[in-house]
Amino acid sequence: MEPIKGEQRDGQSEIRKLAILTGGGDCPGLNAVIRAAVKTACHRGIAVVGIQDGFRGAVEGDFRPLELKDVSGILPRGGTILGTTNRDNPFAYPTQVGEERQVQDRSAEVLDRFKAEGIDALIAIGGDGSLSIAWEFAKQGLKVVGVPKTIDNDLMCTDLTFGFQTAVATAQDALDRLHTTAESHHRIMILEVMGRYAGWIALYAGVAGGADVILIPEIPYQLESIAEAVQRRARLGKHFSIIVVAEGAKPLGGDMVVERTMSGRTDPIKLGGIGAKLAADLEKVTDMETRVTVLGHLQRGGSPIAVDRVLSTRYGVAAVEAALAGDFGMMVALQGQDIVRVPMAEAVHKLKQVEPDDPVLNAARSMGIEFGD
Amino acid sequence: MEPIKGEQRDGQSEIRKLAILTGGGDCPGLNAVIRAAVKTACHRGIAVVGIQDGFRGAVEGDFRPLELKDVSGILPRGGTILGTTNRDNPFAYPTQVGEERQVQDRSAEVLDRFKAEGIDALIAIGGDGSLSIAWEFAKQGLKVVGVPKTIDNDLMCTDLTFGFQTAVATAQDALDRLHTTAESHHRIMILEVMGRYAGWIALYAGVAGGADVILIPEIPYQLESIAEAVQRRARLGKHFSIIVVAEGAKPLGGDMVVERTMSGRTDPIKLGGIGAKLAADLEKVTDMETRVTVLGHLQRGGSPIAVDRVLSTRYGVAAVEAALAGDFGMMVALQGQDIVRVPMAEAVHKLKQVEPDDPVLNAARSMGIEFGD
Amino acid sequence: MEPIKGEQRDGQSEIRKLAILTGGGDCPGLNAVIRAAVKTACHRGIAVVGIQDGFRGAVEGDFRPLELKDVSGILPRGGTILGTTNRDNPFAYPTQVGEERQVQDRSAEVLDRFKAEGIDALIAIGGDGSLSIAWEFAKQGLKVVGVPKTIDNDLMCTDLTFGFQTAVATAQDALDRLHTTAESHHRIMILEVMGRYAGWIALYAGVAGGADVILIPEIPYQLESIAEAVQRRARLGKHFSIIVVAEGAKPLGGDMVVERTMSGRTDPIKLGGIGAKLAADLEKVTDMETRVTVLGHLQRGGSPIAVDRVLSTRYGVAAVEAALAGDFGMMVALQGQDIVRVPMAEAVHKLKQVEPDDPVLNAARSMGIEFGD
Amino acid sequence: MEPIKGEQRDGQSEIRKLAILTGGGDCPGLNAVIRAAVKTACHRGIAVVGIQDGFRGAVEGDFRPLELKDVSGILPRGGTILGTTNRDNPFAYPTQVGEERQVQDRSAEVLDRFKAEGIDALIAIGGDGSLSIAWEFAKQGLKVVGVPKTIDNDLMCTDLTFGFQTAVATAQDALDRLHTTAESHHRIMILEVMGRYAGWIALYAGVAGGADVILIPEIPYQLESIAEAVQRRARLGKHFSIIVVAEGAKPLGGDMVVERTMSGRTDPIKLGGIGAKLAADLEKVTDMETRVTVLGHLQRGGSPIAVDRVLSTRYGVAAVEAALAGDFGMMVALQGQDIVRVPMAEAVHKLKQVEPDDPVLNAARSMGIEFGD
Repeated sequence: MEPIKGEQRDGQSEIRKLAILTGGGDCPGLNAVIRAAVKTACHRGIAVVGIQDGFRGAVEGDFRPLELKDVSGILPRGGTILGTTNRDNPFAYPTQVGEERQVQDRSAEVLDRFKAEGIDALIAIGGDGSLSIAWEFAKQGLKVVGVPKTIDNDLMCTDLTFGFQTAVATAQDALDRLHTTAESHHRIMILEVMGRYAGWIALYAGVAGGADVILIPEIPYQLESIAEAVQRRARLGKHFSIIVVAEGAKPLGGDMVVERTMSGRTDPIKLGGIGAKLAADLEKVTDMETRVTVLGHLQRGGSPIAVDRVLSTRYGVAAVEAALAGDFGMMVALQGQDIVRVPMAEAVHKLKQVEPDDPVLNAARSMGIEFGD
Repeated sequence: MEPIKGEQRDGQSEIRKLAILTGGGDCPGLNAVIRAAVKTACHRGIAVVGIQDGFRGAVEGDFRPLELKDVSGILPRGGTILGTTNRDNPFAYPTQVGEERQVQDRSAEVLDRFKAEGIDALIAIGGDGSLSIAWEFAKQGLKVVGVPKTIDNDLMCTDLTFGFQTAVATAQDALDRLHTTAESHHRIMILEVMGRYAGWIALYAGVAGGADVILIPEIPYQLESIAEAVQRRARLGKHFSIIVVAEGAKPLGGDMVVERTMSGRTDPIKLGGIGAKLAADLEKVTDMETRVTVLGHLQRGGSPIAVDRVLSTRYGVAAVEAALAGDFGMMVALQGQDIVRVPMAEAVHKLKQVEPDDPVLNAARSMGIEFGD
Repeated sequence: MEPIKGEQRDGQSEIRKLAILTGGGDCPGLNAVIRAAVKTACHRGIAVVGIQDGFRGAVEGDFRPLELKDVSGILPRGGTILGTTNRDNPFAYPTQVGEERQVQDRSAEVLDRFKAEGIDALIAIGGDGSLSIAWEFAKQGLKVVGVPKTIDNDLMCTDLTFGFQTAVATAQDALDRLHTTAESHHRIMILEVMGRYAGWIALYAGVAGGADVILIPEIPYQLESIAEAVQRRARLGKHFSIIVVAEGAKPLGGDMVVERTMSGRTDPIKLGGIGAKLAADLEKVTDMETRVTVLGHLQRGGSPIAVDRVLSTRYGVAAVEAALAGDFGMMVALQGQDIVRVPMAEAVHKLKQVEPDDPVLNAARSMGIEFGD
Repeated sequence: MEPIKGEQRDGQSEIRKLAILTGGGDCPGLNAVIRAAVKTACHRGIAVVGIQDGFRGAVEGDFRPLELKDVSGILPRGGTILGTTNRDNPFAYPTQVGEERQVQDRSAEVLDRFKAEGIDALIAIGGDGSLSIAWEFAKQGLKVVGVPKTIDNDLMCTDLTFGFQTAVATAQDALDRLHTTAESHHRIMILEVMGRYAGWIALYAGVAGGADVILIPEIPYQLESIAEAVQRRARLGKHFSIIVVAEGAKPLGGDMVVERTMSGRTDPIKLGGIGAKLAADLEKVTDMETRVTVLGHLQRGGSPIAVDRVLSTRYGVAAVEAALAGDFGMMVALQGQDIVRVPMAEAVHKLKQVEPDDPVLNAARSMGIEFGD
């Protein structure tokens, strides 16, 4: 991460062409990472190839050169100019064989294609799913650098993934909106946010949005604790409450709410998750009008906020620098205020949850925010 | 609406004390109307009494004086400092009688109380429900001025209700967010917005947010028309589509989608409305991934946008001026760029829908936006 | 403006190719107009040619075809994909002649080039300057439709120009920011907004942003009136005031503040306009800390707000429809809630100012907002 | 910072009443700190007294109790409910003595008054100025905890001050607005942001807003380097550039631009700082149209963004916890992701500047952003 003014070209690495892809769900900051990587590479005379639609493009050979003009103006834009998908694993790729559709390992084709195209290394921007695939390729000899992307912030070895803070900002804005309605109508307003396995968005948005109750997967809740918190407020003259609930929250002793799916898809159209269940339960217990809003995909879109643009940019630069330094099989990560490189092997197939001694959790408890336990 | 510099106190009206209340669902701009009315009244030496929680406070005698300091700083805030409710009609008021809860006509108490308090006239800020109640009181001799409030913009005799344009802005922001995800993931993204009987929010937000398909209650849709529009885009290389659907939209020959309710309440917690149904139907027909987001209460909250602040302020001033001019039983309304007074009798119990020759509808059709017919 | 479903091609007009250009200062909504015009034209099988950088491109022959793909995704973006300039009049075009730079009439070249390119009509999007040039061409036989663009809203014959309401929203947001600082620091905060000859932005932003004093070019101000308003507030316990001043405001009997320019340019870098003068004067008279912020170019940029996107879209559609109807020499305009066509001759070379009986001005006065007279 | 569920009251500290004040310039998040401190104190049965207008209120005895209801709803609001001032040091306090105004040491009165009021400790929220005063009191025996506040982020011993990230977001939004105008008009657009002695806002906003050139006080600039960067872009077909300049930036070998002041005040009304000088210089050298916008007080106001709300809340909680732990003479600070306590003696009277090896600076250089050296 040293300054490059007057720097000599790094001797040991012989990177002349980098490929870059974006995988998994949409996330604000993807374009900012791509832009920073391309600008950094161009600044050093390295060519960049964009792979369309994540690993699908790697199998199908859907490549295109990325030059400065291609990344001009994309910094503020949500989404990814490369497209993405959260299906399509080359190690188990859906392929038409004669009459039927089978799943085949087509990873070798990808490696061959990379060789044929003269691609020296791959920058894979993704969450646990895409980085796990990238790590499989790394084990087969591909030179890979990973960039941690998920709005859920539940990736190990990094303090922050990009996109998370924009999702928190979106959820906080929703809480601000619900607040005045709750107060004017003397209602309980529930906001269901993303976080199937970890409560980071709920925790941070809840603190930023002035929530009275925050429910996260890590802390199974008791309905009575929530009702008591709501009624304690009413006794103090506050006849409304704001509750943030992560989609993966669940009652103590209960299961995660089964979502009724409409199609066999992995990310089904939800008909009523934990927010709706909680609303119904709370209305019964408290006899207060209760409304639920499911924030859904709004958390994944929109222009990244400034802190995410800075973080995404730093990740994009650092990924290229890791490649030029010959430091492969690594994921760039934020630790404290620094960008570091961590082994992908330590980051993937794991889950970073909110720990009982998390400092933001503790600050929230100190102020009297209820967590339902 | 003349300038007041150097103006003489209006001789024929003997208004010394005005009451003001806000009724119905939350709506951005309520506080701006209250503030403008109070400032205008104070500027002329008229006292103002705020009634808490709509007509409930009128029955219960929950009043408080409103002075300049009470409305300081409330212009940008959503909600209403007076509280509101969308139940509690004095003409059919839920009352405990011995052991049971009955509905009683308690309107006479309200009139008596107003007389006792020396209230000369009432400014009622509300939608069709609250204005209808106000009109009943007007017929019984109460001096009433109405202010048209609904985010749905479906009130007769006024070009615009306040709150509508803020709701449109919120829905447009949501569409901007969904757009990049739709494009990056090659999906159909559906946004369900408010509008049970009229499609104004869907129409305006759809045009402002670049929707490809807009479905409104006034135009029953055919699934094939929508699927054809989506596939026509795909043939032009655009493998994504944005659909805005009003909650009251329905298929041709079909019924409005029955919402499964959880509590017998009038505004039930929805488990899956037209957006979810449409998503399931479209996935089957088009074989494209489809996601739905229900915007819900986010449309009702938040700081009013500048145009709504100006409109709300004009309404608040005009309501007081109507009272001072002795012009009662009237609703202030926007016609073209002017604030006028219209008889409440003509405005209530009616519904302003999107007509087939609506100019914004026609502009949308001219550009090729699909309406499903 | 009729619906086009099943409509027959208009017989009398023989428009096969339209040109479009954007002239004058930057304005939110330019891209929305271009997009709507191109989509409407394509939907009817009409070709569109974009002219780069306003009338400069018309002289230099800097044209490019505009198809659906060129306008995809531009609706939310500020600026103009066609570029613009507020210099370069073809009737007095700066031209290198031998050693020196002269001004020449090159309008005939433009007409010839249009003919050679098969351009049947021109849609000119601009303010008074660009529309005046367009009108000169119209008088020479070019088929022209104008679209009224200026953030200042000072064009005749239309209730609203596009861009104005976004500028108001930007100024209102600035006022919201200054408000809390004013209150926390017990200061006078002055915001200088655009409006050299008309006070529309100051008036609307002032009402929307809760200003205590609004100063506009149409109402010369007396310092004592402003000081008295500020001190009256202090006596009521409000030790801060918010003032919005249009750049063209001036003291009674005084001149518009001469701006010290840095270059000979028409839109010079300002070093201290009316805002700075007023701050210095007020500090002396009131002995209250006073700060000034000049909003400047921030008012011209950014994504258009929803109401401006709808208005811009309607203008773009209506301009193409006017061309197809053979209705030339006209400007599309908003009157009330309708888009109409007005003769360009009546719209150009004039100035729409805030009249003494303007309804928003009167509403502001009714609430006690001070205008300095 | 441990969780408080079931925790026993801290034995060694005997804090029953805390005072809190806010000093220095306005900063987004002040109210969030106050709210968190009051909520935390109330949750533990500690009384809180608010001191009005910073140390002025400490001298004048302008106190008021702060209870839960006083901090309700203030989280999203800019400014401070306690008022603030950036003058009025009790150790050199302006006092009327007979006919003349003298400066006197009135710190003893403050200490006496605190004792009389039963105030056990003071939480001082401020920048270097206010914290230095607080530290003087600490040396005289007052129990003090400091909270680091400055939008400039130039306080030692903490990675982040609250308010900084909101200021960066405001500046980034301004850059987004200027971007489209720059591109549409082929101009150089300069944004002057705060940062008299340190370039943090300029650096972070520049990276987040896609600036091409960033000028900060720590790196004296050469005009030719900037002009060359601008012209290099033009040769690549990009006929516009975005420059962010901190108000304290200066040319190599030159002085900080002397600001012409209008009054003798410490924070004078500026008439033309470095932005205007740079614009004039660049127009001459490059012959490109150049415009400058001075962001000014807009950076200090508005609702804090989510990350600042979380940080402010953590600071407020941590300050109370430090007091309860009997850890005085300390400032709460962010180091990495943790809130820690650092001796005030190490934090005050120093300046944290952007170091040559700052990681964000290096990332910016790696992408080719020009710093003028």
